[in-house]
Amino acid sequence: MLKRMTFKGNLKEIETKLHGRKTEISAEVNKSVLDIITNVANGGDKALLEYCAKFDGFKPESATDLIVTKQEIMDAVTRIGPDFIRILERTKEQLITYHKNQVEKSWTIYKEDGVILGSKVTPIDTVALYVPGGTATYPSTVMMNAIPAKLAGVKHLYIITPVKADGKVSDVILAAAYVAGIETIYKAGGAQGVAAAAYGTKTIKKADKIVGPGNIFVATAKKLCYGVVDIDMIAGPSEILIVADESANPKYVAADLMSQAEHDRLASAILITTSEKLIDEVDQELERQIVSLPRAEIIRESIKNYGGAVLADDLKHAFEVSNDLAPEHLEVLTANPIEALPLITNAGSIFLGEYSPEPLGDYMSGTNHVLPTGGTAKFYSALGVYDFIKHSAYSYYPKDVLATFKDDVMTFAHKEGLDAHANSLKVRFEED
Amino acid sequence: MLKRMTFKGNLKEIETKLHGRKTEISAEVNKSVLDIITNVANGGDKALLEYCAKFDGFKPESATDLIVTKQEIMDAVTRIGPDFIRILERTKEQLITYHKNQVEKSWTIYKEDGVILGSKVTPIDTVALYVPGGTATYPSTVMMNAIPAKLAGVKHLYIITPVKADGKVSDVILAAAYVAGIETIYKAGGAQGVAAAAYGTKTIKKADKIVGPGNIFVATAKKLCYGVVDIDMIAGPSEILIVADESANPKYVAADLMSQAEHDRLASAILITTSEKLIDEVDQELERQIVSLPRAEIIRESIKNYGGAVLADDLKHAFEVSNDLAPEHLEVLTANPIEALPLITNAGSIFLGEYSPEPLGDYMSGTNHVLPTGGTAKFYSALGVYDFIKHSAYSYYPKDVLATFKDDVMTFAHKEGLDAHANSLKVRFEED
Repeated sequence: MLKRMTFKGNLKEIETKLHGRKTEISAEVNKSVLDIITNVANGGDKALLEYCAKFDGFKPESATDLIVTKQEIMDAVTRIGPDFIRILERTKEQLITYHKNQVEKSWTIYKEDGVILGSKVTPIDTVALYVPGGTATYPSTVMMNAIPAKLAGVKHLYIITPVKADGKVSDVILAAAYVAGIETIYKAGGAQGVAAAAYGTKTIKKADKIVGPGNIFVATAKKLCYGVVDIDMIAGPSEILIVADESANPKYVAADLMSQAEHDRLASAILITTSEKLIDEVDQELERQIVSLPRAEIIRESIKNYGGAVLADDLKHAFEVSNDLAPEHLEVLTANPIEALPLITNAGSIFLGEYSPEPLGDYMSGTNHVLPTGGTAKFYSALGVYDFIKHSAYSYYPKDVLATFKDDVMTFAHKEGLDAHANSLKVRFEED
Repeated sequence: MLKRMTFKGNLKEIETKLHGRKTEISAEVNKSVLDIITNVANGGDKALLEYCAKFDGFKPESATDLIVTKQEIMDAVTRIGPDFIRILERTKEQLITYHKNQVEKSWTIYKEDGVILGSKVTPIDTVALYVPGGTATYPSTVMMNAIPAKLAGVKHLYIITPVKADGKVSDVILAAAYVAGIETIYKAGGAQGVAAAAYGTKTIKKADKIVGPGNIFVATAKKLCYGVVDIDMIAGPSEILIVADESANPKYVAADLMSQAEHDRLASAILITTSEKLIDEVDQELERQIVSLPRAEIIRESIKNYGGAVLADDLKHAFEVSNDLAPEHLEVLTANPIEALPLITNAGSIFLGEYSPEPLGDYMSGTNHVLPTGGTAKFYSALGVYDFIKHSAYSYYPKDVLATFKDDVMTFAHKEGLDAHANSLKVRFEED
């Protein structure tokens, strides 16, 4: 079932194929999204309400009806029930355990000559979290975005999400928001919801950053609003890459390949191994296990198109291939998985050993599941607290120290043809 | 000379005007840059050499002639002379003093139950630094980009820069590269240079990230290659905002406003003060000092269009206005400048006190001069070591701990309709 790929011959081809899996935005989608943004930017709540009626079939009397009430949240929590609330709470605790290590502090250097240099860490003030409605409603994603933003100290964190025709938002989203500590939720989804967050309306506070996944209209709206607001990465199709040696259990390898392959037909699942025998055994396990999986058809297609097995010379070789592919999820199923860490340079999230399966990381390992895809792990990180802060540099120089820099700075400025820069130093020492 | 702006009435207007100063890319530029990128991506060195001949008038025999030789670098260093090399060395030391504090370490948590969680910090492997030729040749910018990249541990850091018709690169660029420790410099500028770095050719190694300023063709090429490679921020026109009380010296205020206003006609220089008297005195100083400045005409125009003075009720008020504008450079010329730090939330770089002028920060304060513009300091930081690394999360769970999560993860996965995710947990405990 897994295609065999040889390392030497096909890596470039695999890489091109994997990294090329981008959803193209049609000119038509682009145009209609741009119209929506322009109308909401200019028309505010009124335009937003019109789109709400048009696309969601929900016709509230006024824009305040777009705000989810405390009662609605509490009713959803009750309906969801204590067991799932407990699971969400546990997820939250796990995420805090991991992400609190990412919290950065402002720092200052006090030099002996009186110079003070530093960096002030400030949270982004207002962040909008887009949460899709419909079939792909993932409460886990609410938690993955909300917890780092909360730990960063974001003052205003709110959710924008599509509303159903009856004016309701999915219980599971409200429950996740409740556990994550998000109190403000707007019934405003699609491109119009993104536009409202980007430009602000009377009801919806203008955001500085918009995060969270969404369909093609949401992703296009985020791209088009980028600059007016910051946005997070646009996630591509999911990927898993497993590096395994002969010690790996083929049952687990097969299960984990399928756990990502089930996401959608563009998902990728690749095995790189030093054991040809393992490839054969994994193939058998894939066939054995797939029959019980509801999404078997999707799994078969994504493995057929974007799956495969690479036979590597040795583990060093295997990780070289993996580093070139820069996978979103990397499982290390070898005899000594922790020893692999020095060899890994490009990967969104690394799962070490046979009892750290990727799906644990999707929910409860504590690490984030919002990860770079399509080879962008070569330059991007998992979503983290660092995505919700910024650094402002600061400097304080006493006069006598500035005096020692005066001539050099003026020479430098003149060299660059910037005489008013030099003048700023000159005027400070004219009396001397 | 400074327009008076009232806080209550016009802030939104000022903000819109300042944050709207974006250079529009014409469809024509976009099309011609896209052609260049496509041709270089497909044609490699051959296409690059053709563009080199067409745009720069330089016709080397082969692509290896695009590589600056060690001899060329040493000759440039000799011509530049020891005094300016010393200034560059001093700049480098100052930058290291500041930026070494930004170096991040990998971290690991060892939990008592045997769980290991961590984050591996890895430098981006290959970074191309674009350095403009021609009139806007800033050796300072070479240093500002190179030092954080070097401190991050970037393995392959190279420069791409336009070549003159005689096949030479500006001495000052080569000297700055020498001091910064960059050994590889390619004579490949413009959109074609960017394309070569983004896609790689036989001669030029494919970069993972491209940084550095450039003209409209370079900026457009970077935007169009984004995704294939990472890019840095596209810098907008320069800005200075000065918050001053009655203790400020109008001579310094005027000089510093002009130091940014001289950059170009779109530059912005704004004074926010609690002292009406200061505004009048600054006006007089502007007129007195401007007569000696070669770029007086540019200064007059940028101050006329994007300059102004805001009279604030008190300092708290002044910093509220400043935070809304989120300036690239913020000077604090008040009696107790360090006390202002808690009030400042949005600013690229903060200059505290009357002997820490902004031009010092352009060259030698140690802080970076590559800064967010156009209000993007609300969500972006100064360029730093963090721009050249990425974090890979990792997790290791022992079997008995995974067992305690099994049921919750499976419940969560089923709730999200992802049965193959649940299966990954299930198969691991089938024997039990």
